[in-house]
This record gives sequence, C-alpha cells and structure tokens, in this order.
Amino acid sequence: MPIEPVLFPRLVAASDPDWRAYIRHSFVLQLASGELPEACFRRYLVQDYLFLIHFARAWGLAIYKSEALGEMRRAQRLVAATLDVEIGLHIDYCRGWGLSEAAMANKPEAPATIAYTRFVLDRGAAGDRLDLEVALAPCIVGYAMIAAERAGDAATRLEANPYREWLEMYTGTEYQDLAREAVAALDEQFTRRGGEGRFPSLAGTFAAAARLEADFWQMGLEAQS
Amino acid sequence: MPIEPVLFPRLVAASDPDWRAYIRHSFVLQLASGELPEACFRRYLVQDYLFLIHFARAWGLAIYKSEALGEMRRAQRLVAATLDVEIGLHIDYCRGWGLSEAAMANKPEAPATIAYTRFVLDRGAAGDRLDLEVALAPCIVGYAMIAAERAGDAATRLEANPYREWLEMYTGTEYQDLAREAVAALDEQFTRRGGEGRFPSLAGTFAAAARLEADFWQMGLEAQS
Amino acid sequence: MPIEPVLFPRLVAASDPDWRAYIRHSFVLQLASGELPEACFRRYLVQDYLFLIHFARAWGLAIYKSEALGEMRRAQRLVAATLDVEIGLHIDYCRGWGLSEAAMANKPEAPATIAYTRFVLDRGAAGDRLDLEVALAPCIVGYAMIAAERAGDAATRLEANPYREWLEMYTGTEYQDLAREAVAALDEQFTRRGGEGRFPSLAGTFAAAARLEADFWQMGLEAQS
Amino acid sequence: MPIEPVLFPRLVAASDPDWRAYIRHSFVLQLASGELPEACFRRYLVQDYLFLIHFARAWGLAIYKSEALGEMRRAQRLVAATLDVEIGLHIDYCRGWGLSEAAMANKPEAPATIAYTRFVLDRGAAGDRLDLEVALAPCIVGYAMIAAERAGDAATRLEANPYREWLEMYTGTEYQDLAREAVAALDEQFTRRGGEGRFPSLAGTFAAAARLEADFWQMGLEAQS
Repeated sequence: MPIEPVLFPRLVAASDPDWRAYIRHSFVLQLASGELPEACFRRYLVQDYLFLIHFARAWGLAIYKSEALGEMRRAQRLVAATLDVEIGLHIDYCRGWGLSEAAMANKPEAPATIAYTRFVLDRGAAGDRLDLEVALAPCIVGYAMIAAERAGDAATRLEANPYREWLEMYTGTEYQDLAREAVAALDEQFTRRGGEGRFPSLAGTFAAAARLEADFWQMGLEAQS
Repeated sequence: MPIEPVLFPRLVAASDPDWRAYIRHSFVLQLASGELPEACFRRYLVQDYLFLIHFARAWGLAIYKSEALGEMRRAQRLVAATLDVEIGLHIDYCRGWGLSEAAMANKPEAPATIAYTRFVLDRGAAGDRLDLEVALAPCIVGYAMIAAERAGDAATRLEANPYREWLEMYTGTEYQDLAREAVAALDEQFTRRGGEGRFPSLAGTFAAAARLEADFWQMGLEAQS
Repeated sequence: MPIEPVLFPRLVAASDPDWRAYIRHSFVLQLASGELPEACFRRYLVQDYLFLIHFARAWGLAIYKSEALGEMRRAQRLVAATLDVEIGLHIDYCRGWGLSEAAMANKPEAPATIAYTRFVLDRGAAGDRLDLEVALAPCIVGYAMIAAERAGDAATRLEANPYREWLEMYTGTEYQDLAREAVAALDEQFTRRGGEGRFPSLAGTFAAAARLEADFWQMGLEAQS
Repeated sequence: MPIEPVLFPRLVAASDPDWRAYIRHSFVLQLASGELPEACFRRYLVQDYLFLIHFARAWGLAIYKSEALGEMRRAQRLVAATLDVEIGLHIDYCRGWGLSEAAMANKPEAPATIAYTRFVLDRGAAGDRLDLEVALAPCIVGYAMIAAERAGDAATRLEANPYREWLEMYTGTEYQDLAREAVAALDEQFTRRGGEGRFPSLAGTFAAAARLEADFWQMGLEAQS
C-alpha cells in the first residue's frame, strides 16, 4: 500500500492562490479544450525546449548534491529522462509543428524562461538537494496534476484536439509514476534533511516557483497577439 | 598612465543594439530630465533594494571563486560596498521617498528582478570568476556609463530634479573609480583565464545581461500605469 | 543572560573519541608546555597560512549561501576577520619566525591541508549553509576550546614559552566572542534549517572535520623528524 | 585520421616529475608483476569504491556546468559508466576478494581519498568545466596510460597474476576509447574556454591532482605493514 504523501500537499496548501493560478492557467484550459491558438503552443514548445536544457542541468546538480548512491541514481534517471527521452520527444513533436531543432536552439530564451530556470538552479546551488527538489516540484509534479485534472474535466476534448498528444503524454502511466516518485522523495528528504523549522522557507521556494511557472504559461499565451 | 581597456569595449561593441537599448532606456532619459513619474522611481527603488541582496551574494561567490589573495580582497571590497554602503544609502534614500526597509524587504521580487539576479548567479556558479564578472559588468560599469553620458547631455536637468541625488551618486568619483577597477579586472582575468576562443561565450553572457537590465528599467517604467 | 547552546555540545558528544584526539593532540599539549620543537610550529604556521586562504573562501561561500541580510553580515565579518586580521597577524607572526609571506605562499599545500580545506568547501558547496558551518565549527570553536582548556591546565607554562602569543590570541576575549557567536549561529540555523532527522548527517560531518583537524596537528608534529 | 592531442601532452610534460612518480608508482609496478601484497590491493579496492561515489558526483557537476547538449551527454555517459558499470564491476570484483558492498560502504574514507576527491570537486565547483576536467584527467587518462605502459613492460606478468583482471580492464578497448575521448575533450574545451594565459593555472591543477593520485597508491601500499 503506498504511503500517503505529506510534504507536497502541505506545500500546495501553503502556496494557494499561486498554485491554483498556475495549474488552472488559461493556457492549460485552452490547451485541454483544443482552443489554444497554435502560435501560443508553438512559442511554448520552443521555450520548453530551452527550458529542458536547464532542467537536465538541475538534475546533474542533484547528482553532485547527493549523499548516497540511491539518490544519485534517481537523479541520474531524471537526467536520462530529460536528455534521452523528453528532449527527443520534443524534437520529434516540434518537427511535426514545423520547428527544427536548430531553429529552436537558436531562439533567444524568453525572460520568463530565464527567470524560472535560473531561480531553480540558484535555489539548488545555494541550498541543498531538498531546496532544489522543492523548486523543481511545481514543474515535475505540477504537470502530472494539471494533466490528470484536465483529463477529468467535462470541458476537455480529446478528439480533433491538436494538443492531444501533449495531454496523453502527461496523463500516461510513465509520467504519473515519475511524479509520484518525486512526491515520495520530498517526504524522504524532509525527514532526513528537514524538520518543521524549514517549512516556511521551503513553502516560499515552492510558491515562488509556482508563480514563475504561471508566468511561463502567460508568456505562451501572449504569443497570440 | 592608465592602461587602455580592451575586453569591456569589445563586449559593448558585440552586444549592440542590446547595449544601447539598455543604457539609453526611456527610464534613464526621463530620470535625467526629471520627468520620470514618481511611481516608476519608487518601484525601481524597491526592486533595486531586493536586487542588491543578490548582488552581495554574487560578490561572496566571487570570493569563493578567487585564485589569489588580491582578487579575494577586491571581491571583499565589493561585498562591503554593497552591504555597508549601497544598501545603507538605499535605505536612507528610500526613507526620504516614504519607503521603510521593512516595507521593501516584504515586497515580492518582480520577475525582471528574479531573471537578472539569478541569471548572473547561475553564470557565476556554473562558470568561473570571469563568467561571473562579465555577467555583472553591465550593472557595475553600465551604471557609471549611463550616469556619465546623461551628465553630458543637454536634456539633463539637475535643478529641481527629484532624482538629482541618484545621478550625482553614479557620476561621483567614488563610483566611477569602482567601475574603472571592474573594467581593469576584466582585462586582467581575460589574460589569465581567457583567450580569444572564449570571447563569443562571454559576449553572449554580456548581451543577455544587458537585455535583462533593460527589462529591469522597463519594469520600473510600467509602474506608471 | 546568554542562552545555553544545544547543537554544538551534542556534536561534540557524538564525535568522541575523535573530538578528544583533536583538542588534546600532542601538538597542542607540547605547544602549551612550550616543549614543541620549533620546526613543528614553523611547519604548522606555513600550512595554516595556506589554510586561511581557503577559510576565507569558505566564508565567501557562506555569503552566497545566505538567506537574509543578518547572516550575510556575519559571514562578511568572518571574511574580514580572516583577510584583514588573521592573515595579517600570521604574516607578522611568521616574519618573527623568519618566514616571509612570499616564502609561505610558494610552499606546496600539505596533503593534510588539502584534505581538510577541500572537505569543508565541498560539504558547503554540495549542502547548505548549515552543512558548511558544521564543517567549519571544529576549527573556529575548537581553537577557542583548545586555548581555554590549556589555559586552565597546570602543565601549561606562559613564561618563556615561545608559543605564548598563539595561546593568548585564542584565549583572548575577541576570539572567544567570535567562537561563542559561531556556537549560537549553529543553534539558530538548526532551528531554521534543520530538525532532528538531520542530526546524524551533521554529526558525521563534524566528526570527519575533527579527524582532519587532528591530522593537521599530526602533520605539524611530523616536521620534527 | 584522429587529431593529434595537444593539451594533455603539455600538461604531462609540465608536471614532471610528479607525473612519473604517479604513473610508475611502486604500487603499480608490483601490481603488474603480481607481487603486490593482497592487503594492499584490498585497501585500494575499498578506497577506490569510496572514490567512485565522488567521481560520479564530479560528472554530475559537469552536467550542471555544461554549455551545450553535446557536452552534457558526454558527462552523462561518464556518470552512467561510473554508476552503472564501474561501481557494479567493483562490487563484483570485491566480492571475489571477500569484500561485500555493505562492508565497503561502511569503511571510513582514508585521508588520501578525501584529499584527492574533494580537491577535484573544489576545482570544479570554484572553476569552470575545463578546470574540472583537467583535475579529473590524471585519473581517467592516467589509468589508461598506466595500464598500456605496464602491458608493454617485460616485468609484467599476466599468468597467475591475481590482479590480471584489473590490468585487462584498463588496457581494454572500451576504457582506452573513453580515455581518448577525455583527451580530445580537453583540446576542444581549451580552444573554446581557454587560451595560453590559462595554461599555468591548469598545469598547477594537473600536477596537484597527479601528486594526490600518487598519495592514493601510497595509501594502498602502506596497508602491508
């Protein structure tokens, strides 16, 4: 029987309404209903490709910051998931949208991309691995929650939805398992490296990351104009 | 006779038009003519206070990244200039504008503040001290150039300009010397840790930092609405 | 009335007998009785000079890793204590022992110096500021305890002891206050960033650092042969 | 046709006699002739297992410090080579020598292990990826050279040599290719991030790492007493 998660739900509760503004952002609702303008999705795709490079760097940093072989191996799997799978899927997926890898790699990073990625890396470099994982959680776990919530929503439409593949990737078992593993790791680390006194600082990191994720959606949405 | 600087002018030349968009930003022109709405300046002041905390962290990082006592001591002086002088002046100055330190410390960081500060810290943590100093140069040296350029401009007005103190602080000898020292340090480090092959990467860092500085002015300007 | 320290005494208790082997090392006992061969002290002085450079780097790292202005300022004071005072005293002191600064700076670091300094810096870079301060505590606080314990020992001799100045520097109010401040900072940080679950890892860091400090004395002692 | 390496041979030339003392250390000569006491090899095996944990951390740090996908992927392959292959081989190999993984993981790190691993990690954290790779080169490339040199030596004996497997692993194509790749990466990075001015500092890092590697052999050898 899986153990009930503790830290992640507390971080979510403490970061409302920032959390809700992120996981129910208009970008996400329009993506689920299929009404999102293509220009918005395309902008998101390019910036998400640039984001993933720093996401892989963050998990490299986690390897360096590990105290035991087990946690090194989990970080290593996330580097591999990013560099071997996600970036590859992104490149395939983007090609279907008329975007070559070279074209994406040459685009400048949007301020929202810089703000979120460098905030996470700075929390991780200046703090310990728990600070880093808490800063990454709105992304890893948030995407799983967003996809699951939208899958259960009456307004969501899969047929003829150009973004169906995106929704199915994140509702898929593989991604949901990865998110569950991240939630469990937060509890394990909070026990081993945390304590109640650390909660306010971690909650501040989590809420700031959620706001920066919402800005990232907003940056996509603003491509329509 | 002072040695003619080499690296800094090359970085400026390579980053045009980003550099010009930063040092001649409308925020700066309006500040020099005294026409900048007070709300814009007040927003800038608060965010610049939050910025300085990370600026001091960056020079702490530079101490850690030093290879010799001399460069440790220069970084130490910049930590002191920030924590003992600049933050203090800021607090005094802001009090004159009706902003207490507690009020400033409680304001959330603007996305533009997060983007610039964390970009600099990440370049510094992932790279070496030269990467860090190049990322910091648009700020340290840029402010000295901005103030000097505005001081020589016919549209600049000192009498009855509410921002006169700001202009005089950065045209002052103390600040101009500090900027000259930073320019000289770039050459010293480029000789000792660089080489021509590194120039494109350093120029990329410098241009990105200049763009993020322009976004910082823009964030101030948008407070008027 | 000062608050009774909690974390530091627990770390000491958990690291016995490593702690005792460090603070009552034969080098220290011979130094206090004045019987330490000069060659041993001279070797220690040179290596301690090389050590202090990395000690200052560690406090620069602490500035970077700070979460609030107050803790940045304490780290800044320790950088200044090292670069402006301790290294200066060392240079003066060593000159009295016939060692110029240039001569010291050119000596290779002993393996024991590398092991201790880089262990501390790595704990600090990979962990958070609490990990860093715990790794530094055997040095900062340990020296204050060593000097105080020796001052109260019947075998200690101040008259005609060539190492009297060393003993008096560390029993002096200034140094004892600095050590007390470090002990208080450990409790403050353990409350804010720690929790019981972190104790075993911190105790492991502390004991390892104490062993590396004992190796440092031993390296000095072995100069006699 | 492979390109002739440039930086690595220069580093070797500049670090003599430290380099020779490392690659022709008595431990290595006795291992190749089969005369090395088993206690020495067993001590080496345990400490090398503890070393590999930090070696994997170093390549995680290299992922974080990468500027392009290609160099992230090379670092990722080295993390995998360490965590998936080398540590596994070590565990199997050590089991054959009567050492369980749990037994190895519980042994304290020898001072020589701490000194070398933390020196490398500190050069990498404080410097850039080139500093890190230069600090790692005496290990990665050195082992390939040691094995190749011993394979061509008349005093080397493979039959009935209890250390034959060790020699064959490092003379094997797979390991030799990995070393060649590391040599090529040094040149690529020296072109892109270096320049002649950096050579003295890199040579200092390389020579220090070679001395610490020699100390590591010596630590193994001293187990016989």
